[in-house]
Amino acid sequence: MTDHAPLGRLNHIGVATPSIARSVETYRTLLGATAIGEPFDLAAQGVRVCFIDTPNTQIELIEPYDESSPIAGFLRSNPAGGQHHLCFEVADIHAAIADLTAKGARVLGEPRIGAHGTPIVFVHPKDMGGVLVELMETPLAGH
Amino acid sequence: MTDHAPLGRLNHIGVATPSIARSVETYRTLLGATAIGEPFDLAAQGVRVCFIDTPNTQIELIEPYDESSPIAGFLRSNPAGGQHHLCFEVADIHAAIADLTAKGARVLGEPRIGAHGTPIVFVHPKDMGGVLVELMETPLAGH
Repeated sequence: MTDHAPLGRLNHIGVATPSIARSVETYRTLLGATAIGEPFDLAAQGVRVCFIDTPNTQIELIEPYDESSPIAGFLRSNPAGGQHHLCFEVADIHAAIADLTAKGARVLGEPRIGAHGTPIVFVHPKDMGGVLVELMETPLAGH
Repeated sequence: MTDHAPLGRLNHIGVATPSIARSVETYRTLLGATAIGEPFDLAAQGVRVCFIDTPNTQIELIEPYDESSPIAGFLRSNPAGGQHHLCFEVADIHAAIADLTAKGARVLGEPRIGAHGTPIVFVHPKDMGGVLVELMETPLAGH
């Protein structure tokens, strides 16, 4: 069993929404969000995303492209939207995957490039107390 | 309509669990958590909580006291546990409540003293895109 690196910073909270535009308005009007990025497509994942900065982390709004998007299934169960995942930073995605796998946790698929341009991977929520956890190699800039 | 203070820092993510002890073990073993507080009771809210530090925020593990706890209902729908709420800091809880109410959002009940000793209040998830949002007056220490 490999040693584990210490728990990294919370890069973002993923929040599924049927409409990024409406959610941006909600966060702006009700919570005072001002640092709101431009939405962009993550085509490989079938979603459109938009980051909202808080002073210490980010909220990632996630809207499905179409009915085949994995987020579309989440929204069928939660039509208003809701909390979808938590993303923690790791120094080395391959070391993290090796460590989790050695400990019996299920890592979902191979690493792919995430919204901040570094490799990411998801851990099965059944191994994380019902929480879908994304691990992201720490972005070199942008904090 | 009152002006809104800027979006505050994410104080913590609330994660419901049927067992704080098992969740602590999961976060320690799989994610490398090391800064894990002692669990304590929030009797007025019918829950036991435990804070885990990440470098930039905290995870609040929440376990119900008994079947009458509001968290018990959440766990009936999500037996393994899951993401329960997001808590953002505000400078003045009464100003925040007045602002939200003026804008038509539903604030749930009166402010009460939260896990960090300052007043907190919840906003109805139907007004926040399906996300249960807690607002907490910024603690004077403990960041």
